[in-house]
Amino acid sequence: MPDRARRQEILAQRMTEAGVDLMFLPISADLEYLTGLSRRVMTFGNVEYAHHFVAGAFFAPGRPPLMLLPRMIYEFDLPDGFEGDAVIVRELDDGAAAFEKAARSFGTTGKIALGPRTWAETVIHLLAAVPGTELVDAEPIVNPMRRIKDAEELETMTRACCIVDEVMGEITPAVVAGASELDIARDVDHLMKLKGSRTASFDTGVWSMGPGNSRDATVRISDSRIEPGVGVSFDFGSVIDGYCSDFGRTIFVGEPDSRYREVYDAVMAAQAAGMRAATPGTTAAEVDSATRRVIEDAGYGRWFRHRTGHCIGLDVHEHPFISEEDRTPLEVGMTFTIEPSVFSPGVVGVRVEDVIVCEEGGGRKLNTYPVTMAVND
Amino acid sequence: MPDRARRQEILAQRMTEAGVDLMFLPISADLEYLTGLSRRVMTFGNVEYAHHFVAGAFFAPGRPPLMLLPRMIYEFDLPDGFEGDAVIVRELDDGAAAFEKAARSFGTTGKIALGPRTWAETVIHLLAAVPGTELVDAEPIVNPMRRIKDAEELETMTRACCIVDEVMGEITPAVVAGASELDIARDVDHLMKLKGSRTASFDTGVWSMGPGNSRDATVRISDSRIEPGVGVSFDFGSVIDGYCSDFGRTIFVGEPDSRYREVYDAVMAAQAAGMRAATPGTTAAEVDSATRRVIEDAGYGRWFRHRTGHCIGLDVHEHPFISEEDRTPLEVGMTFTIEPSVFSPGVVGVRVEDVIVCEEGGGRKLNTYPVTMAVND
Repeated sequence: MPDRARRQEILAQRMTEAGVDLMFLPISADLEYLTGLSRRVMTFGNVEYAHHFVAGAFFAPGRPPLMLLPRMIYEFDLPDGFEGDAVIVRELDDGAAAFEKAARSFGTTGKIALGPRTWAETVIHLLAAVPGTELVDAEPIVNPMRRIKDAEELETMTRACCIVDEVMGEITPAVVAGASELDIARDVDHLMKLKGSRTASFDTGVWSMGPGNSRDATVRISDSRIEPGVGVSFDFGSVIDGYCSDFGRTIFVGEPDSRYREVYDAVMAAQAAGMRAATPGTTAAEVDSATRRVIEDAGYGRWFRHRTGHCIGLDVHEHPFISEEDRTPLEVGMTFTIEPSVFSPGVVGVRVEDVIVCEEGGGRKLNTYPVTMAVND
Repeated sequence: MPDRARRQEILAQRMTEAGVDLMFLPISADLEYLTGLSRRVMTFGNVEYAHHFVAGAFFAPGRPPLMLLPRMIYEFDLPDGFEGDAVIVRELDDGAAAFEKAARSFGTTGKIALGPRTWAETVIHLLAAVPGTELVDAEPIVNPMRRIKDAEELETMTRACCIVDEVMGEITPAVVAGASELDIARDVDHLMKLKGSRTASFDTGVWSMGPGNSRDATVRISDSRIEPGVGVSFDFGSVIDGYCSDFGRTIFVGEPDSRYREVYDAVMAAQAAGMRAATPGTTAAEVDSATRRVIEDAGYGRWFRHRTGHCIGLDVHEHPFISEEDRTPLEVGMTFTIEPSVFSPGVVGVRVEDVIVCEEGGGRKLNTYPVTMAVND
């Protein structure tokens, strides 16, 4: 069990150092990290209950968290329950008054930190409750706690990575000419669930690129059937105890030409270079640069069209990002993806992605699935 | 094609009436309604790109919308593109400066309305850009536009309802003793996609309740196998052109006893009563009350544990809610669910849900699937 009391103590210290009297976190990975209250599976269209804007918790140094939950979330969306007490806001309650009372119960506050995705509706109620307070982003306070994973977190994330490794192996024989991307993605999602994943950590992508079509990586899934002569790229992840994995490989269907082989080798070499560069103290931007250089040197730099990766944990994308604008130095225990690609519509599509942990000598994969070229006839 | 220019004109009028100079909407159903910029499929763990907080658009009367998009969203997440211009914020750009410049380009603003789920991170940047401005919720300005559906929207929503009707019919023979809820849900989701649904509108639920187990409706899905003597409740929806459906039925597996039959009849009668009550001018709370009374009179009021329904459209749950706290009068063209249930763990579980449109004489279902009792041996 994570030592959440200890996490809350560290949070209180960090709040004090930042001059923050009060913090509000909505239902989020931050809140799950600190209290164990789990997020619900996401929905495409918004789901909302009466007084939903109150959902979350206030944190203040020296006080237990004060949680507020709409009755419907409390009764239906938390089958595993949670630790601590909560103010349950019922349909006929005055939600604004309940929220105001909770916010004011902490006394005068000069500076309030907000989880970065707290709803504006909540912020407006907060400004009405404690007018004149300065608002700051809670991210610089909470993210540095979350981005270094302890041994237990690494073990959980390794399990999440193990699931995608197994699924990739089991799905590979189905990646043949005539198969539909939609059917393959359905089976990927289902296999992950059968192996214990709560849900997909993000929308599974299965897409074909090569000389045989004009497809770009922007269309992550389609109901078209795989034609010979394409690379089929995968992008998917599982969820174990709230922790996400994120994984990618490309399988060629048909007989790969020399360009595909050249690009494939360059992308795998780029990932390996990124891992070697990922030593403590190296900046995220430098890892991006070390990865990118291999693809640039192979002549395909123009087609590596996105950042090299991103930290990962309870969220799929966490700061810091392994990207040219991010100067954060890596630290031992940081987990992030290295996911170079070459996506050139009508020509070639190759990607690889694994979750990497920063260690003294460089990056180590939490995945074990090989990166050798896979070709299905 | 929706007349989005007209929608933007109406928005400008409503902003002026509300004394609002400027509105910011993040990527959301509101923004899709006004500009056609589609939302991405949702993810369990947060997905985030550099400068992601800028994503959305400013609206001011007499000016075209000013859209801001991180490069990664612009290049990878909008395969269908969008109408109008956008400021693209690239990785090495100063995102805060770009956002500030956009916010200030509208001149002095006394009151700014924010989409209710705008990120707090965005709000903090906005307060820095235009200090001293009053912030208000955009919901009372935009929601009344969205909640009345025009003929084209009703046609789209009917298609979304037609898909779930077809899927329910096709999946019914698979709901037998020994089948797994997880397998059934997989096939529901896949069938919806094969019929043109972009994704599930929310997490599909398939759960068994009855004397044969102690299950509650809070556990929406499990990997357990269906045992004879349970009602298997379904809750799922599709997405067509951004519009959501939301649907429910219960199938009994085995030989239903007299209590199940009594409860089943009461739940269906409750829905019918709710539909009859749903005339223009009737309040949402009165529809809730008319529906609930039938179940209370049958002696199961304690086990109807949630609101009767909610409006639905580009989001799954839209205001007003068909719930005791909501005094909004219905209007012709409003679309909402009526979804009574009786969930008594270890005893009985029955639910029904359809999308209803308010018409002069009462509610009319957009679904056509029957509510007659379904029993599988």
